[in-house]
Amino acid sequence: MPIIVQKYGGTSVADTERIKNVARRLVAARGEGYQVVAVISAMGDTTDELLAMAHDISAEPPERELDMLLSTGERVSVALLAMAIHELGQTAISLSGNQAGIQTNTVHTKARITGVETRRLIEELDSGKIVLVAGFQGVSPEEDVTTLGRGGSDTTAVALAAALEAQQCEIYTDVDGVYTADPRIVADARRIAAVSYGEMLEMAATGAEVLMLRSVEYAQKYGVPLHVRSSFTDQPGTWVREEDENMEKAVVSAVTHTDDESKLTLLRVPDRPGVAATVFGALAGENVNVDMIIQNVSEQGTTDISFTVNQPELPAAQKALDALSDELGVAYIIGEQMGKVSIVGAGMKSYPGVAAKMFKTLADAGINIEMISTSSIKVSCVIERAQVEDAVRALHTAFALG
Amino acid sequence: MPIIVQKYGGTSVADTERIKNVARRLVAARGEGYQVVAVISAMGDTTDELLAMAHDISAEPPERELDMLLSTGERVSVALLAMAIHELGQTAISLSGNQAGIQTNTVHTKARITGVETRRLIEELDSGKIVLVAGFQGVSPEEDVTTLGRGGSDTTAVALAAALEAQQCEIYTDVDGVYTADPRIVADARRIAAVSYGEMLEMAATGAEVLMLRSVEYAQKYGVPLHVRSSFTDQPGTWVREEDENMEKAVVSAVTHTDDESKLTLLRVPDRPGVAATVFGALAGENVNVDMIIQNVSEQGTTDISFTVNQPELPAAQKALDALSDELGVAYIIGEQMGKVSIVGAGMKSYPGVAAKMFKTLADAGINIEMISTSSIKVSCVIERAQVEDAVRALHTAFALG
Repeated sequence: MPIIVQKYGGTSVADTERIKNVARRLVAARGEGYQVVAVISAMGDTTDELLAMAHDISAEPPERELDMLLSTGERVSVALLAMAIHELGQTAISLSGNQAGIQTNTVHTKARITGVETRRLIEELDSGKIVLVAGFQGVSPEEDVTTLGRGGSDTTAVALAAALEAQQCEIYTDVDGVYTADPRIVADARRIAAVSYGEMLEMAATGAEVLMLRSVEYAQKYGVPLHVRSSFTDQPGTWVREEDENMEKAVVSAVTHTDDESKLTLLRVPDRPGVAATVFGALAGENVNVDMIIQNVSEQGTTDISFTVNQPELPAAQKALDALSDELGVAYIIGEQMGKVSIVGAGMKSYPGVAAKMFKTLADAGINIEMISTSSIKVSCVIERAQVEDAVRALHTAFALG
Repeated sequence: MPIIVQKYGGTSVADTERIKNVARRLVAARGEGYQVVAVISAMGDTTDELLAMAHDISAEPPERELDMLLSTGERVSVALLAMAIHELGQTAISLSGNQAGIQTNTVHTKARITGVETRRLIEELDSGKIVLVAGFQGVSPEEDVTTLGRGGSDTTAVALAAALEAQQCEIYTDVDGVYTADPRIVADARRIAAVSYGEMLEMAATGAEVLMLRSVEYAQKYGVPLHVRSSFTDQPGTWVREEDENMEKAVVSAVTHTDDESKLTLLRVPDRPGVAATVFGALAGENVNVDMIIQNVSEQGTTDISFTVNQPELPAAQKALDALSDELGVAYIIGEQMGKVSIVGAGMKSYPGVAAKMFKTLADAGINIEMISTSSIKVSCVIERAQVEDAVRALHTAFALG
């Protein structure tokens, strides 16, 4: 019997009525002849409520204890869902990440899955049960509970689908798929029927929030077909899979954006080997995730280096740079209110002039480009935050995505 | 370094402020030179809230899933408490029942502890940490989460104290010890400094709610001295330990009571071997806990059998008896609104006339005794529920307990 893995996010199990709805969906999938594994997130705002209690007690709670705390939310969901399935006359069993064999490293609050021990999963499936796995969590070699970071339940689902060689992995969420742009900004944004892993990775990296980067990486690595769809309808959503001839041959598949970038520019940095390593080493030391980096050779043996960070990480970045300023004798300036707009498309690889068209579109809309970064299937531009929505709309129209 | 085990109930950790209070107490105990293990219950009403969600989904949720659900409450408490201790500059680690090595049988929702594997507990203690154990839970041979039933955290604490050969086990609660009678009923009820295990067992069995029967049995079996005290003061509470010469030599130590008894009387039952076995076998089949049983030889080869059950179990008892009525051809009558008043005291063993004094006291107060049951250190009388409070006050005065 083929195995299907379904993942339901927090909004899909936000209250007992919605849990009953998910139970009906799982029983239906079982009735269609699948062995069913479901990965479940914590109900609604549970994780935020638990975090609020933790921060009421400590500004910097120990991460091992945060994992012990936060991992309870998904256990509540799976237990309640098991009850709801029993109520429908089917048998189900809830499993914690540990019981489901999700093995991770010891990096608490953002652990990585190192393996899946499928013995119990297969036993329970073979005994005819619907298997419900608490998402977002695993167990470390020290037998401590770990969590996988934001969007971790998606990764749990993909990892289980890979380990069980599932036919497919369905990601149920509160939107009905991946769109050509954020529908809240672009009225005629269109659901995309299918995208390649590579495109989805670029989209996730540049602001599409529907899937977390790591789960897409995992799906690509193990060739797990993902189906992103709504838990409130029966409509098909968006498939994420290997690029093939049936996919739309759009040059540009989607416009993505972020609106929480800050730009820092180091002025007149000595232009000698090792300087960039010093700067970005210091930032890494403060756990700052640097996104885009640009260095231009300037004049008289000095250079300017610009980079962007997520705005919440700006204070940490400033701390790192202030500590460096004596050593390197450089000043820096901050552009705090920045955003980023990107176009993503697998067709771009074999189609020249796409970047030029993007730059012209933004120029025609009176939008100044501060930084540019490209990959083979993506072009990103950092711009003023206030102009992000206009930019998204202009690009969506220019590339005829509506 | 001596080990101390402390247990804190749900009211002691009802909110983050109280959790911080418990953290201070644990750090203080560490400062006094103890290795500290703390067993923690779920915060305030957490367990009831989880149960309400379960019953919103299913009238009879599967017990394995109830255990998965309910065990999360204690995990939240221990994680938050670990954070609060770190905030005070001490190191602590939270452990689930499983991680703490609490092994149980597979009887979900009322599992019994079968052993404690202390390896990790000792490792963590030896590394200087305060060890926080989620109460009320363990792990079955199938590696499923089990819970220990009402008052289970007390049992967890006693089991850990026994396995670790702790110097003592302190049970922190919202009352400051064991009283000579319920202070809500008897104004001059007095805290008892020390009672023997045997007396505490009888008191717990006859209505004293401060400690659960099973935890006292466990403490007696392994000789763990218990100290029942308040988490809101530093006053000493009540010691529960082996009977010794330093204990008060009171003939009667306490008056206990219950007010949710129902009495059933089977009329003119055939007086032949096996009848009682049939009746009480049928009741056991419906999971009815029978408390007191009395059989009097009646006339002409028949007998009357009376017994009491907790009132919530009355419907199940009636179901069992109705099914029997054809077989045995007997009728039964019900006294629904009954209560029970008991006197407990180790001194009673060597002091005649105590029961007689009890009966006379009740008679003088105009209270009719419906049933009597005795052990070597206890006399219990079933009476009308409306007269229970008067009976408790009269007996407390008659035996000079104030």
